[in-house]
Amino acid sequence: MDIGALLTSAGINIALCILLFSLYSILRKQPSNRVVYFGRRLASVRIRNNDFFSIDRFVPSPSWIWKAWETTEEEILAIGGLDALAFQRMLTFGIRIFSIAAIICLVLVLPMNYYGKEMQHKHIPSESLDVFTIGNVKEGSRWLWAHCLALYVISCASCLLLYFEYKSITQMRLAHITRSHLDPSHFTILVRSIPWSPGGSYSDTVRNFFTNYYASSYLSHQMVYRRGIIQKLMVDAEKMCKMLIPVPSDRPNLQPCCFCARNTNSFKMLSSEPDSIKDDISFSDLTVVSRDDEVPAAFVFFKTRYSAVVATQMLQSSNPMLWVTEMAPEPHDVLWSNLSIPYKQLWLRRIATLLAAIVFMFLFLIPVTFVQGLTQLDKLSRTFPFLRGILKKAFISLVVTGYLPSVILMLFLYTVPPMMMFFSSAEGHVSRSERKRSAGLKILYFTIWNVFFVNVFSGSVISQLNVFSSVRDIPMELAKVIPTQASFFMTYVLTSGWASLACELMQLFPLGCNVIKKFILRIEEDSSDDLMTFPYHTEVPRVLLFALIGFTCAIMAPLILPFLLVYFFMAFLVYRNQILNVYIPKYEGGGRFWPMVHNTTIFSLVLSQIIAIGVFGIKQSPIASSFTFPLVICTLLFNEYCRQRFSPVFNKDAVQVLVEMDRRDELSGRMNEIYQQLHSAYCQFPVSNHEFCQSVQAHGSVNIEDPGPMDPQGNTRGKESSEVSEPWAVVNFGRE
Amino acid sequence: MDIGALLTSAGINIALCILLFSLYSILRKQPSNRVVYFGRRLASVRIRNNDFFSIDRFVPSPSWIWKAWETTEEEILAIGGLDALAFQRMLTFGIRIFSIAAIICLVLVLPMNYYGKEMQHKHIPSESLDVFTIGNVKEGSRWLWAHCLALYVISCASCLLLYFEYKSITQMRLAHITRSHLDPSHFTILVRSIPWSPGGSYSDTVRNFFTNYYASSYLSHQMVYRRGIIQKLMVDAEKMCKMLIPVPSDRPNLQPCCFCARNTNSFKMLSSEPDSIKDDISFSDLTVVSRDDEVPAAFVFFKTRYSAVVATQMLQSSNPMLWVTEMAPEPHDVLWSNLSIPYKQLWLRRIATLLAAIVFMFLFLIPVTFVQGLTQLDKLSRTFPFLRGILKKAFISLVVTGYLPSVILMLFLYTVPPMMMFFSSAEGHVSRSERKRSAGLKILYFTIWNVFFVNVFSGSVISQLNVFSSVRDIPMELAKVIPTQASFFMTYVLTSGWASLACELMQLFPLGCNVIKKFILRIEEDSSDDLMTFPYHTEVPRVLLFALIGFTCAIMAPLILPFLLVYFFMAFLVYRNQILNVYIPKYEGGGRFWPMVHNTTIFSLVLSQIIAIGVFGIKQSPIASSFTFPLVICTLLFNEYCRQRFSPVFNKDAVQVLVEMDRRDELSGRMNEIYQQLHSAYCQFPVSNHEFCQSVQAHGSVNIEDPGPMDPQGNTRGKESSEVSEPWAVVNFGRE
Repeated sequence: MDIGALLTSAGINIALCILLFSLYSILRKQPSNRVVYFGRRLASVRIRNNDFFSIDRFVPSPSWIWKAWETTEEEILAIGGLDALAFQRMLTFGIRIFSIAAIICLVLVLPMNYYGKEMQHKHIPSESLDVFTIGNVKEGSRWLWAHCLALYVISCASCLLLYFEYKSITQMRLAHITRSHLDPSHFTILVRSIPWSPGGSYSDTVRNFFTNYYASSYLSHQMVYRRGIIQKLMVDAEKMCKMLIPVPSDRPNLQPCCFCARNTNSFKMLSSEPDSIKDDISFSDLTVVSRDDEVPAAFVFFKTRYSAVVATQMLQSSNPMLWVTEMAPEPHDVLWSNLSIPYKQLWLRRIATLLAAIVFMFLFLIPVTFVQGLTQLDKLSRTFPFLRGILKKAFISLVVTGYLPSVILMLFLYTVPPMMMFFSSAEGHVSRSERKRSAGLKILYFTIWNVFFVNVFSGSVISQLNVFSSVRDIPMELAKVIPTQASFFMTYVLTSGWASLACELMQLFPLGCNVIKKFILRIEEDSSDDLMTFPYHTEVPRVLLFALIGFTCAIMAPLILPFLLVYFFMAFLVYRNQILNVYIPKYEGGGRFWPMVHNTTIFSLVLSQIIAIGVFGIKQSPIASSFTFPLVICTLLFNEYCRQRFSPVFNKDAVQVLVEMDRRDELSGRMNEIYQQLHSAYCQFPVSNHEFCQSVQAHGSVNIEDPGPMDPQGNTRGKESSEVSEPWAVVNFGRE
Repeated sequence: MDIGALLTSAGINIALCILLFSLYSILRKQPSNRVVYFGRRLASVRIRNNDFFSIDRFVPSPSWIWKAWETTEEEILAIGGLDALAFQRMLTFGIRIFSIAAIICLVLVLPMNYYGKEMQHKHIPSESLDVFTIGNVKEGSRWLWAHCLALYVISCASCLLLYFEYKSITQMRLAHITRSHLDPSHFTILVRSIPWSPGGSYSDTVRNFFTNYYASSYLSHQMVYRRGIIQKLMVDAEKMCKMLIPVPSDRPNLQPCCFCARNTNSFKMLSSEPDSIKDDISFSDLTVVSRDDEVPAAFVFFKTRYSAVVATQMLQSSNPMLWVTEMAPEPHDVLWSNLSIPYKQLWLRRIATLLAAIVFMFLFLIPVTFVQGLTQLDKLSRTFPFLRGILKKAFISLVVTGYLPSVILMLFLYTVPPMMMFFSSAEGHVSRSERKRSAGLKILYFTIWNVFFVNVFSGSVISQLNVFSSVRDIPMELAKVIPTQASFFMTYVLTSGWASLACELMQLFPLGCNVIKKFILRIEEDSSDDLMTFPYHTEVPRVLLFALIGFTCAIMAPLILPFLLVYFFMAFLVYRNQILNVYIPKYEGGGRFWPMVHNTTIFSLVLSQIIAIGVFGIKQSPIASSFTFPLVICTLLFNEYCRQRFSPVFNKDAVQVLVEMDRRDELSGRMNEIYQQLHSAYCQFPVSNHEFCQSVQAHGSVNIEDPGPMDPQGNTRGKESSEVSEPWAVVNFGRE
């Protein structure tokens, strides 16, 4: 590949991106696509129906870019939560570090590569890309010091930036905890593996245990029930009901139940409607939750945040497999279906899914090697002689070698996130955010292995799958391969990177579904079920993969850096826009995926340093090679320091913070208010039936000290009316 | 090597052992050796001087064996603590599992090996040892199923036994915690990395922090001071004083200080002596402990065990590098010198010592390969031509090839424990038991690597040190090598194993020191400083190494099992005797090294299974090979289950246990008594000076609520007299 071809490819991709972005700016103005492009806003504000025709609707405009650019970090934090802000920080980190890398590598390293060998240089556009890589520097050259220096600068700058990012995100996390003082999950722990006592129910056992050992701080508890057929019916009925009267709400899945029957705000619209619907749906014959339906798991509520955390940190019983406690996830974050998994199965499930994920990772090699085989047409026509006729045609050959491999690979890659999500579900995580984080980690390993390493190695030596039998040779192999694979990675950034951003912006799948729904099935009403949370589990690994490619290629083939910078800059704008308009934050992850980002970046840095050592070795510059060695050690030490200094904050809450928060709330008298919200927050069955509630209350699992005033429907009206009286902004969508 | 030679070697070793054991039974009867062979008893009872001559003293007797055999587990627990009992359990586990293995392997596997090939068998004594190994089974033989079955039986029996041992030791640990209700370490935590506040001292900072965040449970605290020259002088003076009047005590190092000046029982003998000595030693001008000498570390005392554990489990500050808490070690277990190491250094120290230990492990390869070189005389004489004359003599050649390698290896191996102990000290552990455990782990890795793996590989392929470049081939290599190395391991068990037990019994080094002291330096008085604690850090890895050899060789070369059984049985008796008579338990480790024993046994099992898979592969029995594979997985799953089920108990104390203990003590009114002991327990400087105490008390770090009655010397007389009135048993040593 020469420079001319690269620039042509870049030109085509730029044109494609501009086209798609313009198409997006038109599509988003169509009222029928509102649910696709303005899901988050739809969830928070009421819509004015403005289906009138105007020419304006079909003129592309870059207004969304300005809007995304102008948004401040505070707004991102308020709209998307800490996770969204941490994601943005990851992108700005990418922009910063690759700007530095681009400057130093284009100024210092690129000329060294270009003039590395005494040779007759062609006209630049027809120059091969290899001339710009480190492969062009002659062996034993003194100029390799420039590469070594550039590596030092990039590594030091990354560590410095990483340190400040980690520090600032840690502080933001602490600030977030302090700020979210009404969060019921701070007061709640999840108890699993409750031992069975022959006399009473699980509920009695829980009450006895906590009144015995946590007498001063125990408030009440809420059992988890088996999700039987009756409950399923209830949920279906609830859904039916919702379809009839959509309930606009900031967090659409929040439907507190009647288990506890306090300040329930689901079905609140019903009360302002005629009674006809209410009469249609009668749950009175469905209210059967017996003692036998209890699962040995419960949410236990404490009087202070401090005591809740204490209860999670301690080993409760001398049998560590009983009374296992952990902090409860946020109410909307709870994965109820996984709560009934017996705790004793969990370690087996974890091992099984780990093995399954590894097997899946290696099975994926089959399509990858098949795809690699497609690029070698003569081999293919030898294996399948009947294809020989077709493959001889120039166009078919172009399609098969040029596009088909990428398409097949992309199709296979699309199966990865659902598969990993399935594995993480099977693992038995009790919260959606935890499941997403675990799936994200699996996808990250998968991507780094299958997109980076396998492509690198199979690109050079397809048949040598036993290249990994010898561990010691891996750095050398990488050092040989990476510079030659630079052109592949450049096109990967151009096509997969830029295209993925355009796809993300276009939301092709939801758009397609919406078109089918609106124009084929003729369903006009937008349902809030279509709203999505930000797919961190796919997007974080994607961005981290590009950072990995950037770090490893930076000093080897500096020409990749401008394209990568464009990718990061576009990603910055696109994801901002998506956070502002599309995705809703159903729950708050608290930036807990940052340690993953940090560790992966350190891994990328160390990998690039090891490759550099290998390359310096191949280029017979042992001094540069041994000068790079301390850099690896320093980077690892830096990582260890950060692990000591920051990562505990992402796993445990500090006593100082908790006690201060408890004291503040006690002084301001907010505690009672919080206690009353606790029970309604953790509700398994989103139904609203008075009798059902009463039966459960008679059952004895609800014993909050101060029940507060209640109306005959079991709803506290005050709370509801305050939500209803929220000023519903009337906004013109797509008309900025 | 043939059977005859093996039996001769065994005979020689048996004779040697009997000789040494007889010598021991004579030596132990000599009054001058009492301090060597009855150190523990010396520490607990008063000695009657019975130096009279009798012929009985020079007749060997096996009475010590009966005594050791008759001792019950309860007595071991009472005398040596839980660690000693766990060590005994390890030995009985060895006896049990290798009995089972010996029965099944000698009955089932040995005939299969012997008749494995169609060959003319010689007379058994002149038969080569190789005929009894799996190497003699012909390829593709159906008889390999016997080996597979034996492996299954051994693995299942081990897992079963391991499970019950782990369970019983866990229960004993819980019982031990419940029983030791006066242990001050349950109420005490160690706080490190106290932040510096410009206004006040560290002591003020600690008090403010804990009265703020742990107001209800905080009792008092005790700062740690820099160990300056003045304190060293004090300690020296104390020692001098002790040499003049030895203080018999159950736990000789217990010299509570005057920092707190309650129930101090050191120097208690002084008060019953004339005042002359007291006047000689005046500390009044040495009492300078200023604010500047404080180290940012403190022992903080809590009102209940529960709240102390809570304080250690929580993250105190939002900066995880500040206010780091952990459970305090037992008072006699504290390594004061390491307490002044800044906490921020610890992670660096840990990494540095890890690297140093790894480097040391690999540097050790140099003497090993040198030793291996000695066995090839022709090579040696080629390298050093001037030695050719000497090496031609038969005797010299025998010594050089036969004894010198073992002697050199043994000498080098003797440097390992002090070296690893030094590394563990440098790591910054704050307790002696923790340091010992860490050193034990290092020695274990070292032994398994340098004695097992390196000997196995260098025995077969000396020059091939790059055998490890290819990870995948290791099982195959092991499978090839282990059966051929069986004779080496048999002699290793005979010589190193049995001899090490005889040496342990004889206590050669202390005996030598004692002889020099008594007969050359003419010091008659026995000092309690010579008493030793049980060297778990060297003995546990040694026993585990023999178990590893046993597991890996069991089905390969079953002839090793009888010798191993003899080793374990002798070890059982010898170590019992040593626990009863020699070693004193200065501190209680609580059986915390058991998880290490368990994990190493599992490692040995899995290694032997992997080797078996390799051997079955070489013998072309792929079905037996694939039948063994599930066994590996099941063993690993079993280990994971045990890790989940038992190991948390070895790291954390359970709420149920702690709360029950606290309640019992509160009801019985023992709490006040415990509170009063707390301060005197953790005392850095073992001196007894009233003014010194007063200055410290004025300094403000002592504020126990109920100080109790005190005499002018700062001692509570009641406690002292109760200790003095203990009936000192008068025992005839060595005259059972």
